[in-house]
Amino acid sequence: MSGVGACLAPGGSLRFRTMSQSQYAIGLDFGTNSCRSLLVDLSDGSELGSMVFDYPSGELGILTDPKDPNVARQNPQDYLDGLEAVIKGALEQARSERVDFDAAQVVGIGVDTTGSTPIPVDREGTPLGLKPEFKDNLAAMVWLWKDHTAHAEAAEITEKAAALRPQYLAKCGGIYSSEWWWSKLLHLKRSAPEVFEAAHSFVEHCDYIPAVLAGNTDPAALKRGVCAAGHKAMYSDTWGGLPDKEFLAELDPALAELRDRLFDEAVPADRKAGELCAEWAAKTGLPEGVAIAVGAFDCHMGAVACGVKEGTLTKILGTSTCDITVSPNDKGLADIPGVCGIVDGSVLPGHFGIEAGQSAVGDIFLWFVNHLVPDSYGASAGDKFAKMEEALSAQKSGASGLLALDWNNGNRTVLVDVRLTGLLLGQTLHTEAHEIYRAYIEATAFGALTIIRRMEEYGVPIEEVVTTGGLAVKNATLMQIYADILGRPLKVASSDQTCALGAALFGAAASGAIGLSEAQANCARVRETVYRPIAENQEVYEELYTLYRTLHDAFGTAAWEGKLDYVMKDLLAIRERQR
Amino acid sequence: MSGVGACLAPGGSLRFRTMSQSQYAIGLDFGTNSCRSLLVDLSDGSELGSMVFDYPSGELGILTDPKDPNVARQNPQDYLDGLEAVIKGALEQARSERVDFDAAQVVGIGVDTTGSTPIPVDREGTPLGLKPEFKDNLAAMVWLWKDHTAHAEAAEITEKAAALRPQYLAKCGGIYSSEWWWSKLLHLKRSAPEVFEAAHSFVEHCDYIPAVLAGNTDPAALKRGVCAAGHKAMYSDTWGGLPDKEFLAELDPALAELRDRLFDEAVPADRKAGELCAEWAAKTGLPEGVAIAVGAFDCHMGAVACGVKEGTLTKILGTSTCDITVSPNDKGLADIPGVCGIVDGSVLPGHFGIEAGQSAVGDIFLWFVNHLVPDSYGASAGDKFAKMEEALSAQKSGASGLLALDWNNGNRTVLVDVRLTGLLLGQTLHTEAHEIYRAYIEATAFGALTIIRRMEEYGVPIEEVVTTGGLAVKNATLMQIYADILGRPLKVASSDQTCALGAALFGAAASGAIGLSEAQANCARVRETVYRPIAENQEVYEELYTLYRTLHDAFGTAAWEGKLDYVMKDLLAIRERQR
Repeated sequence: MSGVGACLAPGGSLRFRTMSQSQYAIGLDFGTNSCRSLLVDLSDGSELGSMVFDYPSGELGILTDPKDPNVARQNPQDYLDGLEAVIKGALEQARSERVDFDAAQVVGIGVDTTGSTPIPVDREGTPLGLKPEFKDNLAAMVWLWKDHTAHAEAAEITEKAAALRPQYLAKCGGIYSSEWWWSKLLHLKRSAPEVFEAAHSFVEHCDYIPAVLAGNTDPAALKRGVCAAGHKAMYSDTWGGLPDKEFLAELDPALAELRDRLFDEAVPADRKAGELCAEWAAKTGLPEGVAIAVGAFDCHMGAVACGVKEGTLTKILGTSTCDITVSPNDKGLADIPGVCGIVDGSVLPGHFGIEAGQSAVGDIFLWFVNHLVPDSYGASAGDKFAKMEEALSAQKSGASGLLALDWNNGNRTVLVDVRLTGLLLGQTLHTEAHEIYRAYIEATAFGALTIIRRMEEYGVPIEEVVTTGGLAVKNATLMQIYADILGRPLKVASSDQTCALGAALFGAAASGAIGLSEAQANCARVRETVYRPIAENQEVYEELYTLYRTLHDAFGTAAWEGKLDYVMKDLLAIRERQR
Repeated sequence: MSGVGACLAPGGSLRFRTMSQSQYAIGLDFGTNSCRSLLVDLSDGSELGSMVFDYPSGELGILTDPKDPNVARQNPQDYLDGLEAVIKGALEQARSERVDFDAAQVVGIGVDTTGSTPIPVDREGTPLGLKPEFKDNLAAMVWLWKDHTAHAEAAEITEKAAALRPQYLAKCGGIYSSEWWWSKLLHLKRSAPEVFEAAHSFVEHCDYIPAVLAGNTDPAALKRGVCAAGHKAMYSDTWGGLPDKEFLAELDPALAELRDRLFDEAVPADRKAGELCAEWAAKTGLPEGVAIAVGAFDCHMGAVACGVKEGTLTKILGTSTCDITVSPNDKGLADIPGVCGIVDGSVLPGHFGIEAGQSAVGDIFLWFVNHLVPDSYGASAGDKFAKMEEALSAQKSGASGLLALDWNNGNRTVLVDVRLTGLLLGQTLHTEAHEIYRAYIEATAFGALTIIRRMEEYGVPIEEVVTTGGLAVKNATLMQIYADILGRPLKVASSDQTCALGAALFGAAASGAIGLSEAQANCARVRETVYRPIAENQEVYEELYTLYRTLHDAFGTAAWEGKLDYVMKDLLAIRERQR
């Protein structure tokens, strides 16, 4: 067999691939319970190797505290063990997949992680949690994104920023979260001052991994990504980087002092964080000098693998959602109230990255199927979902008379309020479980539409939506309802591992071997099936959305004042028309 | 054994009963699917004989129309067959129960039925449905209370009465129902004019049965009960009986003409409709001449058997509820908006009978358990209820953060609006089925409290509630929640057949052998267990009721205008306090 092979690319056209010219990149995706690798052919995005490593510590990789359900920490050793395992695993699989694969063809490595996930480190950048004196101290471990111990500090930061630095808040939607950088650092200072004292600096998980691969974890020298800094640490070039010392001192003088030991500059993820060091080259089997990209958050890199561009919203549909779009930074962009953040360069270079999200989507369906669906629909959750989908696909939109709010886990965008709860309206004595399931699907889609409308109101048009995640791939009924409600074509990313694929694209771009745009054009593919709005459903959903929006504003905003006596009657009228 | 026996009466005191002096009465209760008899000892209410007869026609006794789910008719022959069977059955059982029982000791018979259940009859009072030429004509059959074909006519009557005779509407809560007399007659005239034409007159089911027993069904002569006439046919002495001809002609000239062939006077049920005729004496084995009381509706007679009096609300807790209280007619009584009717003498002589009700109570629980409770709670509905009760009895009031509206079947009192639907608010990702069950129990109790508060606002104090029905007897958890929410002692009637028992008491009173008050004092007993409000629960429920009432008014009334953004947050705050 020669170095030239023919393969059928997605879409069916015959393309020629020159083996000797093939270039690969590795994406590393550090999730909540595991990390995974993806080794990608940069000419077409084909995936040659992948490996998943489950974090061995704690419960599914999370260190918890039986006394406080808000605690969610991780062991940094899990990251290092996983890092080595998944790179080696991907290379091994690639070698068996393509006989002429050569690790020397790997041009770059990109890294994404969850966040904000700060790690307290010593002067050399060694995580305190790796040091014997702290190995049993939860406060010295990595503070996982979903650690909610800092809720009081988050409220305090929101309040003080609103009074003193409203511009800081405006870029993160108006409310600072307990999941974010400064809340966690401040809570650590107050709850475990000895650990805060021992920490020379703090590093985001997504900045730490590239530094480890590059062999230099010095916190003063390692590259910091603008994605994490901008979205979670109130970093912006507009006000000279991190929040000023005067403001930090208002929170705690120790934070003001810490500022000098953090960083002055944060850069986009298509830039090089460094090159693979000898130690990690030896550990993994990759050649020394492979480009290591600056790190970023999972959904931001996933968005690139979904083909995010101006006019395209990418939506990672999982237990919750992360919604990302971009707007060219030469156009200027107003603050958008209620989004999670607007950060220059956090997704694509030259663009503002705009992040939004829904607090619960798949989680609502799982809650419903596990707690409220009788076994007449099936024995397992899977059977119940299948039977409900079958039943509801035979029913027209609006025919149930039901309307729900998707707030069982609060509302992330556009209300930014965790103290909201679910609502279901329109039940009769004949309402069946699959009708309620549909109402919840519709509610989450209405929530998604609310995000899109908010973006458009502030000058960010959304022409299409590209989704990824299990629901997008498996649930065609849900996808059609979403298309009907969103009123836009709905596409599904080809890859099942968009975050890792996105990381690989940044690894490639950082190497200089290929531009990010070209890598995205080659590899960020969508599946053939496109869900398009059906006009008659769309019309009914416009009516239902008006009612949803009324309930949304009535229960979710302080500004709303009005009447609601028509809501149930309108739903009954729509139901009668649709039956 | 002599004619004198000793027995332990309820309460434990030793009483002497002289057999030869024993007096009995028979109550006949015609329900939706069956009729039953109850033979009662008037000295203490003990129940000697009873028989149930299931109507053989149609589905569970109801003649339906596959083309129109609103149709609900009955075959008058079922009533006659049942009448004979249940009287004979009760006598037979009494004879085997008490060796010295003698049918000659039966002093009176009382009759209750559902309503408004009008029967089209010929000049002799024979139901058209019994005549060969109409035997297959649904329109000629009995129009059961829950026939909803006349909804358009109900709306028209409401509209015209509001404009022309507001006083008629004020006595029936402001809205005329499709379940009531004139709506049905008008719909018959319009939908089957040939049947209307053939009908010389119309008779309520509860007036027809006494007339049959008395051997004179002449529609011009038979006694009409004020309970049915007053609550459903806009009859009142205040305006000279039935609605005037001018008003009826506005609806249809044929109704104005019909008025002359209906009746001028309607009387309370402690009056005699007649005496048992030879034919029915022979059929049943009772002596000729037994007093037959004027008929009334089931819940009104049931209320008497529950001990209704000024200050006591009786509540028949079933799939829906019927709530009855009385107010002395020498005190004067304002119109009470939203109640189903205020009729002088419809329950107790010398009192206004006040009827209210909830459209769905047990029906909501049945819907929930059958459609939304997973089998982890048990295999059968009974098991699921038991398991849920066990789980929720361990939880404090307000601890779920949930709040519901009890409108899955509309709202009968105080909103009188069938075009309302259910609402559930406060769900999280952890909400469990038994918590929702509790929220629905609470919602129905809040609905009950709303009725009580409305009555009290209009000068009808309610000091205690006496319940009857399966839920009252079987569900102690529900009863305690009700007591906590209603804030009043909650008692349970001793008899499981309060409607039939009430009918028997009226039979006795009509005979003159015993006064209604004395019969009620002897026989209307309550069980030993009294549910009393627990102060700390009551306080929490006062807070929850304020929120319920806000949602009730917001979704249920045109007058409400306001804000709702605090509702979910208040529920969360209560939840946190109660956990």
